[in-house]
Amino acid sequence: MRIELVNTGTELCLGDTINTNAAWIGQRMAALGLEVARQTIVPDGGAVREAIEEAAARADVVLISGGLGPTNDDVTRESTAELLGLSMQQDAAVTAHLESYFNKRNKPVSAATLRQAMVPVGAVVMDNAFGTAPGLYFPAELAAARGWHSHLFLLPGPPRELKPMVESWVEPRLRALLPDGDTRRVIYLRITGIGESDIVEKVEKDLEAIAGLELGYCIGKGDVDVRLAGQIGPVEQAATLVRERLGDCIVSEDRRVLEEVLVQELAARGQWLATAESCTGGYLSSRITDVSGSSRVFGHGFITYANEAKAQHLGVPLALIESHGAVSEEVATAMAEGCLRVSGADHALAITGIAGPTGGTEGKPVGTVFVGLASKGGLPTVVRRYYYPGARDRFKLLTSQAAMEMLRRRLLGITIPG
Amino acid sequence: MRIELVNTGTELCLGDTINTNAAWIGQRMAALGLEVARQTIVPDGGAVREAIEEAAARADVVLISGGLGPTNDDVTRESTAELLGLSMQQDAAVTAHLESYFNKRNKPVSAATLRQAMVPVGAVVMDNAFGTAPGLYFPAELAAARGWHSHLFLLPGPPRELKPMVESWVEPRLRALLPDGDTRRVIYLRITGIGESDIVEKVEKDLEAIAGLELGYCIGKGDVDVRLAGQIGPVEQAATLVRERLGDCIVSEDRRVLEEVLVQELAARGQWLATAESCTGGYLSSRITDVSGSSRVFGHGFITYANEAKAQHLGVPLALIESHGAVSEEVATAMAEGCLRVSGADHALAITGIAGPTGGTEGKPVGTVFVGLASKGGLPTVVRRYYYPGARDRFKLLTSQAAMEMLRRRLLGITIPG
Repeated sequence: MRIELVNTGTELCLGDTINTNAAWIGQRMAALGLEVARQTIVPDGGAVREAIEEAAARADVVLISGGLGPTNDDVTRESTAELLGLSMQQDAAVTAHLESYFNKRNKPVSAATLRQAMVPVGAVVMDNAFGTAPGLYFPAELAAARGWHSHLFLLPGPPRELKPMVESWVEPRLRALLPDGDTRRVIYLRITGIGESDIVEKVEKDLEAIAGLELGYCIGKGDVDVRLAGQIGPVEQAATLVRERLGDCIVSEDRRVLEEVLVQELAARGQWLATAESCTGGYLSSRITDVSGSSRVFGHGFITYANEAKAQHLGVPLALIESHGAVSEEVATAMAEGCLRVSGADHALAITGIAGPTGGTEGKPVGTVFVGLASKGGLPTVVRRYYYPGARDRFKLLTSQAAMEMLRRRLLGITIPG
Repeated sequence: MRIELVNTGTELCLGDTINTNAAWIGQRMAALGLEVARQTIVPDGGAVREAIEEAAARADVVLISGGLGPTNDDVTRESTAELLGLSMQQDAAVTAHLESYFNKRNKPVSAATLRQAMVPVGAVVMDNAFGTAPGLYFPAELAAARGWHSHLFLLPGPPRELKPMVESWVEPRLRALLPDGDTRRVIYLRITGIGESDIVEKVEKDLEAIAGLELGYCIGKGDVDVRLAGQIGPVEQAATLVRERLGDCIVSEDRRVLEEVLVQELAARGQWLATAESCTGGYLSSRITDVSGSSRVFGHGFITYANEAKAQHLGVPLALIESHGAVSEEVATAMAEGCLRVSGADHALAITGIAGPTGGTEGKPVGTVFVGLASKGGLPTVVRRYYYPGARDRFKLLTSQAAMEMLRRRLLGITIPG
């Protein structure tokens, strides 16, 4: 089955937006055992029609995103209808959805808004639970008059609208189009605390010797997914091998991110976590609270960016900061233990480091960071030093990842590397 | 001048790699006043030749990335040579570069490696200072035999190799191809606190009446860039109009994000900000500390996810929480004023709301949030209620944006809408 993507949007061509939709859709298709044969990205306007026409003539399935909104440069709906020779009519259900959406926000429903309720005759409306413009599905029979055999899916551009629509509307239809008895499997082993090249070193040679296995790596947010695809036999053989070699580093086998795993492991034990962050400035706690249900395991967080804040809220002695420096093993220990005491939590993670671009010294260059973990119940406080030079956002990401991994290992009784 | 990109790589189609090269090149071209007319992404293999052939027939310039490496599925160099009917010969300088590169790393130079030293006759070698495979430039005269007028640039796929090559080799050649005395301008007006459809309503009709203006909108992180492009006259006329209609909502005219603007405005006044977050869980403070230099304006942050944390660290009376609910104007006020007092800052932003998916009530559905701003110097504490239903990450983004915008307005003496 040949699948193509057409992503529309001037912002994609100008580079104002990074095309994360294309990668995400590629991953979802790979999980179905399908590979995207081509992505075409064009600016809003006349080029949209051209790109859809070319893709529809080549492919079995075309996923088209963007250009469904209310403005004049949103032409995807009209262009597709024109290409297939379909007339448009106002859809009552979509109109009602738009009215309710704007009423809830106390905003008037403008004429421009109502353009989004125009539906080509024969197209199936795909509800948009997270925005205004609905998606549209054009079954292949609508394209038959053009001599094409392609199913067309029109999707909204914003990822928060596109993703649920792909999951709930597109994927079930694609599965129905796939041949019966497909025994393809895809397993993702999510690995953290070890770099891609080390993973390759430990498993690639032996995985490549497994006949019929398709091996891939997806670099994630501080982790790497080892993707094992193919028939069920080779995939399971490969998964066993990876588990044997890298088991301690496997965070999940179902694409859950580390923060989800951590919240669930804490919740299962009825335990609480508190955080004390300096250089990550709240990024760790924000990741934890990205997880729905995190309020059962997380109640208190401190961002002690200033030294006075470390002293005032966590009880870190200013003299300790003066003698060892704010970025030190001693201060990380005091922050973690102070945070544990003040919050009453079962575990406290503390972070102090130099995010840069300024503030580094020869002994502690930009990127140096200490992470402390203190726990109730007589467990020793553990501090580890890491070095993540580079941009601030990457520093925050890798540091918060290392901190959460320390706690995951403590919860699961896995050694925290020295 | 029509520019197209062709990005090759199976990892791009599988979604294992996000195509950041395309966005980065788009930005570099926009800075030259050029817009990428199309991006085509294909997996390694036969599709590469097809994509290059189509783009070369349409465009004046084609930037092709990926597939220059040593492995069998790297076919970009050979495909381009075949398309243009050019024979290949081993290049002495590239061979020497490869040998020196591998010698430095104590690795042998394999036959596969030496494929990268094959250069089509007439193509110009573009040195790769950060990797092994050189880039190749095919001036338009090499394509004339095919009836094309396109300059082709073959670039390595890894961003750390591609970016310096674009800057030092491609951009100077593109500038030389542009007509003299080009007076194109691009202005970005970054707008927050008002939705895209409201912006459209207020300015689009009159902007579309300005001859020669290219108008675009880029949806950002909680803001919208109005992009005005064209010759200097119409662009400045348009910018004046947008400033008149939407001036209070313009955050920056140089693409600075709200957190940068806020940190700079606070630093200019020598003032400090503290934060107290419930439902955003540290996302507001993380955005503020994303800005280099934020330690001059931000010292204390609290994540008071639990009610006890609000009471213990901010002095919010538990009785107040019981009588009004944790998500209320009263508690937002008490959090902001408590945070101001405890931190000693000049301004305190407090956030309490329901991120969902659970915890909503009829009167306060999921997405309801109160933002409080307390300030020193006898200014009244301001609380505003917002409603951002949808995914948690979006809720956090829009809420933190609204909070920072309240403070930006206070600092600049602009009314905070009711």
